[in-house]
Amino acid sequence: MEKVRLGVIGYGNMGTAHVDWVMEGKVPNMEIGAVCDIDVDRRNALKEKYPEISVFETAEDVFKSGLCDAVIIATPHYDHPPLVKKAFEYGLNVITEKPAGVYTKQVKEMNEAAKMSGKLFGIMYNQRTNPLYQKLRNMIKDGQLGHIKRITWIITDWYRPQAYHDSSSWRSTWKDEGGGALINQNPHQLDLWQWMFGMPDKIYAKASFGKYHDIEVEDDVVAFFEYDNGTTGQYITSTGEAPGTNRLEIACDMGRIVIEKGQFIFNRNVISEREFEKINTQPFGLPECWKCELPVEASVGEQHVGILKNFASVLLGNQDKLLAPGEEGINGLTISNSIHLSAWTGKTIDTKNFPHDEYYELLSERIKKSKVKKNVKRVVADTKNTY
Amino acid sequence: MEKVRLGVIGYGNMGTAHVDWVMEGKVPNMEIGAVCDIDVDRRNALKEKYPEISVFETAEDVFKSGLCDAVIIATPHYDHPPLVKKAFEYGLNVITEKPAGVYTKQVKEMNEAAKMSGKLFGIMYNQRTNPLYQKLRNMIKDGQLGHIKRITWIITDWYRPQAYHDSSSWRSTWKDEGGGALINQNPHQLDLWQWMFGMPDKIYAKASFGKYHDIEVEDDVVAFFEYDNGTTGQYITSTGEAPGTNRLEIACDMGRIVIEKGQFIFNRNVISEREFEKINTQPFGLPECWKCELPVEASVGEQHVGILKNFASVLLGNQDKLLAPGEEGINGLTISNSIHLSAWTGKTIDTKNFPHDEYYELLSERIKKSKVKKNVKRVVADTKNTY
Repeated sequence: MEKVRLGVIGYGNMGTAHVDWVMEGKVPNMEIGAVCDIDVDRRNALKEKYPEISVFETAEDVFKSGLCDAVIIATPHYDHPPLVKKAFEYGLNVITEKPAGVYTKQVKEMNEAAKMSGKLFGIMYNQRTNPLYQKLRNMIKDGQLGHIKRITWIITDWYRPQAYHDSSSWRSTWKDEGGGALINQNPHQLDLWQWMFGMPDKIYAKASFGKYHDIEVEDDVVAFFEYDNGTTGQYITSTGEAPGTNRLEIACDMGRIVIEKGQFIFNRNVISEREFEKINTQPFGLPECWKCELPVEASVGEQHVGILKNFASVLLGNQDKLLAPGEEGINGLTISNSIHLSAWTGKTIDTKNFPHDEYYELLSERIKKSKVKKNVKRVVADTKNTY
Repeated sequence: MEKVRLGVIGYGNMGTAHVDWVMEGKVPNMEIGAVCDIDVDRRNALKEKYPEISVFETAEDVFKSGLCDAVIIATPHYDHPPLVKKAFEYGLNVITEKPAGVYTKQVKEMNEAAKMSGKLFGIMYNQRTNPLYQKLRNMIKDGQLGHIKRITWIITDWYRPQAYHDSSSWRSTWKDEGGGALINQNPHQLDLWQWMFGMPDKIYAKASFGKYHDIEVEDDVVAFFEYDNGTTGQYITSTGEAPGTNRLEIACDMGRIVIEKGQFIFNRNVISEREFEKINTQPFGLPECWKCELPVEASVGEQHVGILKNFASVLLGNQDKLLAPGEEGINGLTISNSIHLSAWTGKTIDTKNFPHDEYYELLSERIKKSKVKKNVKRVVADTKNTY
């Protein structure tokens, strides 16, 4: 096998992009094996653009076609876990789009199936290819920050007008999307958080549902994270602010890091604040601190293409490790589900003993009451730079 | 009366500064009438520096001296309300240092006494003279921001090493100071918050006590504010971070304001986001937004001297209004007490029906258990630029 033959399940916004990237040769170790979509218009659009690609109606048609070594699941959220499991049954390797699923109960089962299958399982956490976050993660792992005191991420540059929510019937509903800002816009950041800082131990959150737009899901969230080691976190997100902010601040023994607007600023103490404490005698003493601007690549990294390349490379035996193993998708989702659950119940959630069943029950209540959307204007959106 | 004769009660860090400012002629409409301190060393220090000033041992000596038209109370926190009340009994006009007091129950009584006295009552909220916050407040009052969606203030540039906490026996104790970061470092910002944005209706908070240093009071706080009109606030403060941050961000219909490092940046939407919503048809539409840098004075305003001048000017009939009326001191203190109470009880606090007695009871429990401090090294600190 020289190239991995990729099946693309769902030719919507993301599926279209994946097909294009591979067809344009941006993923040299992959080729398109087959594509499916249940919508006839989407299939016709594909046939017109790429007459050479094998097109099917259903996922199972692709799974049993024998044309693919791996498949990428690019369907609506709820379908990710069942389709991943089905693909494993057919002996395929699988990449799932984010989120891993909508509720942890479902994703736990998917992870067990992945483990049993012995196949390669990845998730499209393309933000893990961003050099800014890779740099920060490596510095934390190397101990360059010392103890982390506080992490504050204000990530509100997700403005979504009513026209977005009305652009398809499944958008921004409990029944078909399973949430709002947390499940659609924030999975990357919630993953990056746990990838860089580890899982918070306790989560308390407030959320508003349909505060800024006519939707039933959350569009405004503030969450407190607590770690058993004393680190605190604040995660602030919204789809109702224009313009928004994307600012990550980390207070640590070695100083303060701010990542914003593509810049990585480290106000670095010459000695650790804890070491300074041992020698300081002045009531208003402060460790000497230097403002350091770290060199970072101008690009945001290889993004989706990087995840596809890495996946193929591991499958072909040319690289050891997946950058984004599928099993890790449950971590960001547990944070997301914990925020919902805390907002719904007013309780602080213990993420290590997350009540999977309780969450699913409360989500199911919302699914039952989910309103059928009116005024849907199906719009083919230009999604470039939005995922 | 051409000049207001000011009595200074307490010749500690702040009292010293007030005497100097007036003696140096920085407050042209004031002169020093008398000063007192219960500490003989402090009195001797004053006599040496200003032999012409009348010096007394107790506040009551000053009150009954007939040498003063007004007094400024610059004693430890708990003594502010009783001394303010006593001064009113002697028919004096009064300025109190911040905080107004330590617990609202005490400050309510003080405010009633102020009202009964018919005398002028001010509070040393010197940050109200800062042109940055005056500008923002005026813009809000004029409706230039539209509805405010979210306010996030990260104010952690209060690093206080152990040497600070050990610099006197009353510092950072429940018994003698009545709290930590909230009662000592943050009263100005909590006042500015309510002065600019109004009082939050609900407060939920987490706080750590003695997390970074060997103290019994809070040194790390995260608070959620909720307004009945939907505005949310997050207030993040700590005395354990070095270096710290002072960044105020406001998301509003008209865009986003960030005040940081003496700069006032307004990312201003050409039309209000709410108006944009009415005409937009694009799923990823965004209002056009201009980055505006507002002109602000390089200085931080007249600060303490400005408050003294304004107080004297109102007393002399040359100005109508106090910039910082003493009765408003209870607002910031109610926020401060609400944060404590929420952190202690895990409950969301209704500030409009603040349980003054419950707070006092829980504070009293802590006062009873307050530890006598060891290892106190009395240090005369250089407090310039720290208040």
